[in-house]
Amino acid sequence: MGSVLNIIKIGGNVIDDEEQLQSFLEKFAALQGKKILVHGGGKIATRVASGLGIEAKMVNGRRITDEAMLDVVTMVYAGLTNKKVVSSLQKFGCDAVGLSGADGNTIKAVKRPVKEIDYGYVGDILVDSVNLLSIKKFLEAGFTPVFSAITHNGLGQLLNTNADTIASALAVSLSKIFETRLIYCFEKNGVLRDVEDPNSVIKSIHADEFQQLVDSGTIYEGMIPKLENAFHAIGKGVKNVYIGNALNLHLYQQGEFGTCLLGK
Amino acid sequence: MGSVLNIIKIGGNVIDDEEQLQSFLEKFAALQGKKILVHGGGKIATRVASGLGIEAKMVNGRRITDEAMLDVVTMVYAGLTNKKVVSSLQKFGCDAVGLSGADGNTIKAVKRPVKEIDYGYVGDILVDSVNLLSIKKFLEAGFTPVFSAITHNGLGQLLNTNADTIASALAVSLSKIFETRLIYCFEKNGVLRDVEDPNSVIKSIHADEFQQLVDSGTIYEGMIPKLENAFHAIGKGVKNVYIGNALNLHLYQQGEFGTCLLGK
Repeated sequence: MGSVLNIIKIGGNVIDDEEQLQSFLEKFAALQGKKILVHGGGKIATRVASGLGIEAKMVNGRRITDEAMLDVVTMVYAGLTNKKVVSSLQKFGCDAVGLSGADGNTIKAVKRPVKEIDYGYVGDILVDSVNLLSIKKFLEAGFTPVFSAITHNGLGQLLNTNADTIASALAVSLSKIFETRLIYCFEKNGVLRDVEDPNSVIKSIHADEFQQLVDSGTIYEGMIPKLENAFHAIGKGVKNVYIGNALNLHLYQQGEFGTCLLGK
Repeated sequence: MGSVLNIIKIGGNVIDDEEQLQSFLEKFAALQGKKILVHGGGKIATRVASGLGIEAKMVNGRRITDEAMLDVVTMVYAGLTNKKVVSSLQKFGCDAVGLSGADGNTIKAVKRPVKEIDYGYVGDILVDSVNLLSIKKFLEAGFTPVFSAITHNGLGQLLNTNADTIASALAVSLSKIFETRLIYCFEKNGVLRDVEDPNSVIKSIHADEFQQLVDSGTIYEGMIPKLENAFHAIGKGVKNVYIGNALNLHLYQQGEFGTCLLGK
């Protein structure tokens, strides 16, 4: 097994708050060893789309990425947000390189097949979507890849892709050549035993305990798919998955970060 | 002296015409050997800015890049245009990686000093702006860097930078480790002896002949600074500079492309 690789995902809430973002990026830059950042979109895309008179299209409550919206998310995610993040990381001494899946053909997705709903230019990640050799080149050159949630299909079409899925796919694939750890940053300190008490973080959850915590109602709503994805990644070779507060990332290498998910 | 490196610059007119762009990119992808693409902006940024209600600010006829406009050009140049170009190049089998100057800290500019006019977030290239080691890593990994005209100052600030200047600075700096050739693509077939006759291309212009062609009126207006820059690059170590039609790029490696500028 190779060296440790930490893959960290931050969501739109951190992206949208300049002060939090800078604080997070400083901590990310200080992380030792090989690392990859995956960032979500934030609300800027919605603002830009609205400013340009592009309506967010929804079908049955699901967001549709038409051509105009794809242009907007490509501009905002792979352009404005990605380059701001990269230039900040450079300021903090981290040699970041911003990537979409098209860059270096790092992530090749497929346009989601049309069944009941046509989601438009949305990319689904397949088992061989991640280009290990390409990403290895960036890491071995000493660069820190910073992925926006835009991929391509290899035939010239860009695709809007879920950032959580990208982070998980990267972690699973790269576990073939690195000891990968996946860190989901969000607004809470971890999985909480008592949702009213931000300090009631459950230190670790074993795969065997997961269903029990769902049944007891401790883990609910949006956390269920998040943790299901996380345990799936562990089942596929990822060493550990952590879930915690973006602003606590400096505690990660002290072993004090959020909730650690453990495999069977 | 190392191997040959071709640095090709395309302007906004090619970017704005999808059919021409695809035709050019297919020819660029087919070029043998190490290469770098630098692309200008095109009219999309103006359209996006106008759609968002951002007015193009001009002072004494010069364009000003305020914060809102910097966000727009970062979105459009480093996001939409750059990623579309990269995904098309991937389709044509070229392993492109889209870069701003912040990515891999490849190009560090300085905000233009305020004298009579404050140009805003415009980056000037200095003699040591280009990070040779970083760009060498991309090239040696087999990637083809695709630069948008966005740089950074190393302190977290992105800067809008002239694409011609970026291409020239890359060519001059990289001439220390590669035999660099700089190719400016524009809408004409080269420097024309008779502006009315697109086939009257002057095959080569020696540095000694340049002033004579200016004096005789053969080279005039916008071509004068373009060629001055080109001869400057040659004086600083670039092997040759070519000026010709983007759609004739397939003729370049047959020695049949546009006008070749030669040093003293």
